[in-house]
Amino acid sequence: MYDIVIVGAGPAGLTASVYAVRANMKTLLLDKLAPGGQIINTNEIANYLGVGVINGAELAIKMFEQSQEAGAEFDYRTVTAIEDHGTRKVVVCEEDDTRIETRAVIVATGTRPRRLNIPGEDNFAGAGISWCAICDGAQYKGRDVVVIGGGNSAVEESIYLAGIVKSLTIVTMFDLTADPKVCDKLRALPNVTIYPYQDVLEFLGGESLEGVRFKSTKEDGVERTVRCDGVFEYIGLEPTASFCKDLGILNRMGCIEVDGRMATRVPGIYAAGDITNKELRQVATACGDGAIAAHNAASYVEHLR
Amino acid sequence: MYDIVIVGAGPAGLTASVYAVRANMKTLLLDKLAPGGQIINTNEIANYLGVGVINGAELAIKMFEQSQEAGAEFDYRTVTAIEDHGTRKVVVCEEDDTRIETRAVIVATGTRPRRLNIPGEDNFAGAGISWCAICDGAQYKGRDVVVIGGGNSAVEESIYLAGIVKSLTIVTMFDLTADPKVCDKLRALPNVTIYPYQDVLEFLGGESLEGVRFKSTKEDGVERTVRCDGVFEYIGLEPTASFCKDLGILNRMGCIEVDGRMATRVPGIYAAGDITNKELRQVATACGDGAIAAHNAASYVEHLR
Repeated sequence: MYDIVIVGAGPAGLTASVYAVRANMKTLLLDKLAPGGQIINTNEIANYLGVGVINGAELAIKMFEQSQEAGAEFDYRTVTAIEDHGTRKVVVCEEDDTRIETRAVIVATGTRPRRLNIPGEDNFAGAGISWCAICDGAQYKGRDVVVIGGGNSAVEESIYLAGIVKSLTIVTMFDLTADPKVCDKLRALPNVTIYPYQDVLEFLGGESLEGVRFKSTKEDGVERTVRCDGVFEYIGLEPTASFCKDLGILNRMGCIEVDGRMATRVPGIYAAGDITNKELRQVATACGDGAIAAHNAASYVEHLR
Repeated sequence: MYDIVIVGAGPAGLTASVYAVRANMKTLLLDKLAPGGQIINTNEIANYLGVGVINGAELAIKMFEQSQEAGAEFDYRTVTAIEDHGTRKVVVCEEDDTRIETRAVIVATGTRPRRLNIPGEDNFAGAGISWCAICDGAQYKGRDVVVIGGGNSAVEESIYLAGIVKSLTIVTMFDLTADPKVCDKLRALPNVTIYPYQDVLEFLGGESLEGVRFKSTKEDGVERTVRCDGVFEYIGLEPTASFCKDLGILNRMGCIEVDGRMATRVPGIYAAGDITNKELRQVATACGDGAIAAHNAASYVEHLR
């Protein structure tokens, strides 16, 4: 029986694995894909301190090596359920219906940004199209960007980006649906243009992204093209914790509700990183979460003994 | 006028500086000492992922370089007060009574562990004597340690350490004062011995730490020596935010009360890292705090415009 099984080997899970091993916990780290999580697909990370400006895949390798050197056991597994039997949990995996027994679980499976799935998106993903203004906004200083979406994230991140870029154009499917106060704030900015009730059709460009084509759903289907250097998509997150749904720990967005100790409502089940109910999803915050989750999971296991 | 002044250039302040600059904030980072904070005095850091096992001073330099490369302005200053004039704050410095104007402030001045100030302590500080079980506990696997203190931190960290080390001896000035439940848990552990009502007199050893000498305050001043490989001191923290006392943001321990956005009760004043009311004081958690504080401080400044 393991002391702690960590599901998801992004920055949160990798950090948790080091803390768990160093707390003398028998620790297993699982991921269905290569370790690193979302950062594997991130071209450049500049705001995780101590490693300089670094390619995401390279940072993932460094983090994984450090977890391995600490002595964490890693395995490729697709988790399909977590069973809560009080002081014993079972992590059920797709592969051969493996059942892994453990005293505590940390879920750190992250989120995926939802995509439009339209022409040009795959081509410019990570090189022109971004899903994180805080991560990539700085490279568009004095340039023109388009934000797609109209919810709280889209509007808040647009206000953030508008302070950096030359011009910002919002294209959204309905009207802005964020809180009225932030919508007012955005509308008052001099360098922002808003196109509500639009279907985004296509990303344009050759070597690099050059623009976005979209079509009104109100004005007789008028089509417009806006020239831009970068696009930020904020049309929602796809959480990856549906395998936890029977535990009753998910909120209505599909994220895991945790307290300040990264504990869920089920004793012995913790969560860390992007999958939790948080505002700022960053490598730095994921690592902090991972440390806190593992510290408290280890404390929970110690107190079981 | 600055947008954001960050007081304290440890991991929290350094991370905050990069986020602030990248949010296009006019940013000033201040410290009275060399950048790095407590990690400068830490021999080995193994649980901050991506940099491998690293010397603390070396990590401090890497973090500072990254802050400088991002474009953060740094200055050596001893801050003596922060004045809140609504949307304008003034950071008052000891040097020539300089007054620095800014829209927002992030306080990240950290804490110092309280010391016993007895013979041998300076000699073995950081090389035998530690103030952080989570940081340094792993190196005492299967060895003998002494914990000094009897409060919640001492007892909780002793339970943690007892799962790693061969034997653990607690020496404390009074009886255990932690919550009864955790005291019971500690007392029940087979490898733990407790000496209450003791004055610690001296740390013994030559090249390396070999033991602790202490004297009973009850049994006619009986003196004892316990052999050990490591000592963990948990006799309290000395916060470093007394310059904030007029703002009404300190708790009774002298730490700064923040919410999940790292905001204090004073709009425009944020805090991050060890100085906040938190449980787990680690490089990873400090960096996470710094990111959150800067993100929200930048959002605050954007909304002032």
